[in-house]
Amino acid sequence: MNSNGNLRAASATVEKALREFMEGRTLPLYTMMAYHLGWVDEHGEPVPPAEQERLRGAICLFAAQAAGADRPDQSTDQPADHREATLSATAIELLHNYSLIHSDIQEGNPDRGVKPALWWVWGPAQGINAGDGMHALARLAIFSMGDSGSSPEKVSAALKTLDEATLLLCEGAYMDTVFQEQLAVSTADYMKMAESLSGSVVAAAVRLGIMAAGDAAGGGDEMLLDGLGEFGLKLGTAMRIAEDYAVLWGEGERDSAAQGRLIAKKKSLPVVHALENAEPSIRRELGNMYAQRVIDPASIDRVREVLDESGSREYTEGVLRDLRGDADQALTKSEIDDDSRAGFEGLIEHAVGRLAS
Amino acid sequence: MNSNGNLRAASATVEKALREFMEGRTLPLYTMMAYHLGWVDEHGEPVPPAEQERLRGAICLFAAQAAGADRPDQSTDQPADHREATLSATAIELLHNYSLIHSDIQEGNPDRGVKPALWWVWGPAQGINAGDGMHALARLAIFSMGDSGSSPEKVSAALKTLDEATLLLCEGAYMDTVFQEQLAVSTADYMKMAESLSGSVVAAAVRLGIMAAGDAAGGGDEMLLDGLGEFGLKLGTAMRIAEDYAVLWGEGERDSAAQGRLIAKKKSLPVVHALENAEPSIRRELGNMYAQRVIDPASIDRVREVLDESGSREYTEGVLRDLRGDADQALTKSEIDDDSRAGFEGLIEHAVGRLAS
Repeated sequence: MNSNGNLRAASATVEKALREFMEGRTLPLYTMMAYHLGWVDEHGEPVPPAEQERLRGAICLFAAQAAGADRPDQSTDQPADHREATLSATAIELLHNYSLIHSDIQEGNPDRGVKPALWWVWGPAQGINAGDGMHALARLAIFSMGDSGSSPEKVSAALKTLDEATLLLCEGAYMDTVFQEQLAVSTADYMKMAESLSGSVVAAAVRLGIMAAGDAAGGGDEMLLDGLGEFGLKLGTAMRIAEDYAVLWGEGERDSAAQGRLIAKKKSLPVVHALENAEPSIRRELGNMYAQRVIDPASIDRVREVLDESGSREYTEGVLRDLRGDADQALTKSEIDDDSRAGFEGLIEHAVGRLAS
Repeated sequence: MNSNGNLRAASATVEKALREFMEGRTLPLYTMMAYHLGWVDEHGEPVPPAEQERLRGAICLFAAQAAGADRPDQSTDQPADHREATLSATAIELLHNYSLIHSDIQEGNPDRGVKPALWWVWGPAQGINAGDGMHALARLAIFSMGDSGSSPEKVSAALKTLDEATLLLCEGAYMDTVFQEQLAVSTADYMKMAESLSGSVVAAAVRLGIMAAGDAAGGGDEMLLDGLGEFGLKLGTAMRIAEDYAVLWGEGERDSAAQGRLIAKKKSLPVVHALENAEPSIRRELGNMYAQRVIDPASIDRVREVLDESGSREYTEGVLRDLRGDADQALTKSEIDDDSRAGFEGLIEHAVGRLAS
């Protein structure tokens, strides 16, 4: 199976586990969550199952396999470490999606992908609730490892990893929101924010996978935790910057969430770089556009031009290449087998490939 | 020491533990939290320490003592179960305050007590962040029990109690928000909501206290967990209804959060009762007022009159008396010592005393 096939198979495994975990929860609170996850429409009616990309959950499964977890078989009697890995993957997807639900409210995005955002359908008050509830479910997914036999040490270590990632995520979201209203943001500040907000969740996905494959004491292979943890941090950071890049220069249709992010003056790395480094006249022009309450959609083409002229597009591609290099180096350091390595390289390619080759 | 003195002493213990736990966290994310907790002003400058009521944390400490935890002494070498109880109390206060931070945004309350609500100062996006971060801290407070020697079983059981309460809280908040836009709410629905939203947190406070006093396996005395858990549920529910009551007929100055809640059409128990049971003409009049986008402040006196005429004020006092009776009965069932019982009775008196005597 090629690495893209691996990713699709892992996504499907995570999707199945997510559905199983949510099964039987029928209160309206969970209908909102099922809507966000793409399973029902805004009236709570099931929609035809579609292939979902569950990237962070898949990363967790890849890490578990790299750390030696038994691969799942089709029998009902799955090995314990695989069960622990899929529950960890479920938890990390719920964590990621809770953060999406809240950030759509925070950024005022009316859409999430091709459909209206949860808060846009049910209002911001219920959006906050649905996110909070999904956050609680993320942790209950980890607890359910204990219900089916994992040691309290293992459960507790996994929960702590999840909660520490949450706190970093909140710290990153704080910076991200502040940057929105602040012109003087340094590229160093931006990188710190992106690591906190996006890198930490992917790093946690990797660590949880390794810990699932570890022994009952809840630890994991230290060399893997270091090496692959670093890989996750760099990959997650790169994913955020690749998103920034796609908002400005992505191929195909731009979704309205991306466009909205631009209009709402989210500081992306290219913009931060230009405001910090471009010539005074360009900085002034860009500064004026970003000092408006929202960016005039008509100015967006000019924003792109300016970022080209200032070398900020090129700079961003360079940062992505560097992160890709760092991620590769971290893979080498972790000394995983060739199969696992190919899987992770496929992930990098999938996430930032075309931008940093 | 009388029971009021007990409550003040326990609140002070919780306050000290909260401050210790937050010490050293200096990122702006934590400044917002410190503001909410009453420690700094909106510029991050410390304000003179004031006595804070930490009711839910105090309940947790009371429960721990009722379950036989050693009372704290002034030496630095505190007994383990007391340390576990104060960390649990810290966690439950952080959970409660996270829910306040989010509900102020959800209800659009500009004020929290005598000062502007957190989101009013920093905006709703940062309000969501600060709440999410405080929620993560609540759980990290429980983890820190493990850092200082508690067993993983105990840590894990405490975390699960906290997370299950969170999910109930979200389910309750969901109903509360739906009720706001819906005229046909039954008193039974309301009671379910109040149990979920407010009872569950107080019940969790009680259970955490008992578990802190329990053995390393993370369990607790079953009779106490049942009896005092039931007590907590009834007390917490009564606290919510007493708040509803105070919004309408409280003594002294009405704070603007309370007034705002009324204007924003939060369905309180007396209103729900009147809409369900009053004579058609009264139901129509009240229905018209609650069908407006917001309630005209000038109509509020008329709302009070109508609720008197329909017997809904009296009904609410009856419900509070019943809850008080249930809470008392649960205390009897749990067979705690007289000292502990006096402490809990003081709590009931403090929370709903004047309304249900």
